[in-house]
Amino acid sequence: MSESIYEKQIQDVSILRIDGTTTAMVTDQLVMEEPLEIQLEYSNETGVLRKNLAVIMRTPGHDAELAAGFLFTEAVIHQPDAINEFHLAGEQDSIRVVLQENTVPDLQNAERNFYATSACGVCGKSSINAIRAVSIFDHVKDNIVVESKTIFQLPAKLAEQQSVFVQTGGIHACGLFSSAGDMIMMKEDVGRHNALDKLIGAAYLGNLLPLNDHILLLSGRTGFELVQKAAMAGIRFIVSIGAPSSLAVELATEYGITLAGFLRNNRFNIYTGKERILL
Amino acid sequence: MSESIYEKQIQDVSILRIDGTTTAMVTDQLVMEEPLEIQLEYSNETGVLRKNLAVIMRTPGHDAELAAGFLFTEAVIHQPDAINEFHLAGEQDSIRVVLQENTVPDLQNAERNFYATSACGVCGKSSINAIRAVSIFDHVKDNIVVESKTIFQLPAKLAEQQSVFVQTGGIHACGLFSSAGDMIMMKEDVGRHNALDKLIGAAYLGNLLPLNDHILLLSGRTGFELVQKAAMAGIRFIVSIGAPSSLAVELATEYGITLAGFLRNNRFNIYTGKERILL
Repeated sequence: MSESIYEKQIQDVSILRIDGTTTAMVTDQLVMEEPLEIQLEYSNETGVLRKNLAVIMRTPGHDAELAAGFLFTEAVIHQPDAINEFHLAGEQDSIRVVLQENTVPDLQNAERNFYATSACGVCGKSSINAIRAVSIFDHVKDNIVVESKTIFQLPAKLAEQQSVFVQTGGIHACGLFSSAGDMIMMKEDVGRHNALDKLIGAAYLGNLLPLNDHILLLSGRTGFELVQKAAMAGIRFIVSIGAPSSLAVELATEYGITLAGFLRNNRFNIYTGKERILL
Repeated sequence: MSESIYEKQIQDVSILRIDGTTTAMVTDQLVMEEPLEIQLEYSNETGVLRKNLAVIMRTPGHDAELAAGFLFTEAVIHQPDAINEFHLAGEQDSIRVVLQENTVPDLQNAERNFYATSACGVCGKSSINAIRAVSIFDHVKDNIVVESKTIFQLPAKLAEQQSVFVQTGGIHACGLFSSAGDMIMMKEDVGRHNALDKLIGAAYLGNLLPLNDHILLLSGRTGFELVQKAAMAGIRFIVSIGAPSSLAVELATEYGITLAGFLRNNRFNIYTGKERILL
């Protein structure tokens, strides 16, 4: 599998900084937001087909992971070995995902879910009911139990690695940890769904799925869509720095996922699934 | 125009609150996230037509404004008087927008933009290039000049009105102000694009468009899509509490919109359009 990673995540700009009555022309760092087109290539009885699947506004970098995670969490591909290779093109604003021979993408899911994808938040009720059917890790058991003192330490571990946020203040992050609190990986993006897709895509490409014995830490708030994507990867333990929405709690409860939030200063709230937390 | 507003924005839940080694079962407030289906009804030579346009994950309340703002900022409708009435149905999870006779929706824009709508962030490059063509207020002049001390006061004025955030900590807000800093309205939603659509929709329904002499204040970060929606309403002055993305600054520069950010503690950064700010 060939992969080239484009790492331009920060843009320098000249700005005017106003501080009370003081004005200064300074250089500031912005988080990059650029479109990435995801193209699928696959073959069926009629030959090789290409389809433009989506254009995602994302922070450049880890584009192969983003594409893989997006295809997997949107249920366009199902198997761990569905992808043969990636081709980056057009000054890195387009990525072509070539599927393995005899692997047919589930484009109905793509179409339903694009109509159905939130945070803008254009979403579909259909997906709320349909996701249990499409996660291949729905019946995977987990043995994850986490001590509350382990949870307290997670934000500092995430912050240590969050290089782009520190410089721009404008980015979402998510981290994957072992149940003992060791960080396995961290991904950042201007879009919180992209950050999670990059993380799940990296796990997909590294054959780490399902993530049923891991902790997922989210830097922001938890909405319906993030719980849905996490469930697709078999995640059973989600902690966020921010607040969850009503539907995020509802969905986590339905899936048997532990959901904690408002993790700050040795405090957090458990919304559902407290049996996995050792107090 | 008939309109019924459903105001259930907060859900009480029982949670376990962990504080160091202390555990307490308490009642917490979650921001509501529920789907709203937007249905269009219009007539052409063949008779009355209905189309299911989108399902949006939103915080209930101001659904007519949300529907109107969504249709207007996505360029499905163009004229201030395009809407005849609204009908809420199905326990308030569906709203039917009835257009005036002889008003034909621009469904091509709908389809392009849904594929093209960000923050999830599925977006379209087409929309980046196409928006200048679709904003009906593109050539409206503005006379807005704002004093920096007026800008310093905006966050406190927004926070005063942000009732749902105070209770749930999980919501985005945007405020519309006069150039003198008087608040005209404020809208909140679990999705930041929805909050802006509700605000622009309220302005649309109140015949306040274009908003070329107003200040738009955003509680979070500024991405490409928010600048795009603001431009659709003729807004020329955007201030955010959080950071902008690179593409937000690029788009604001292209449209001649003033964009300031990181507004905190009598400080802010001007990214573009400093000629409208009196220091």
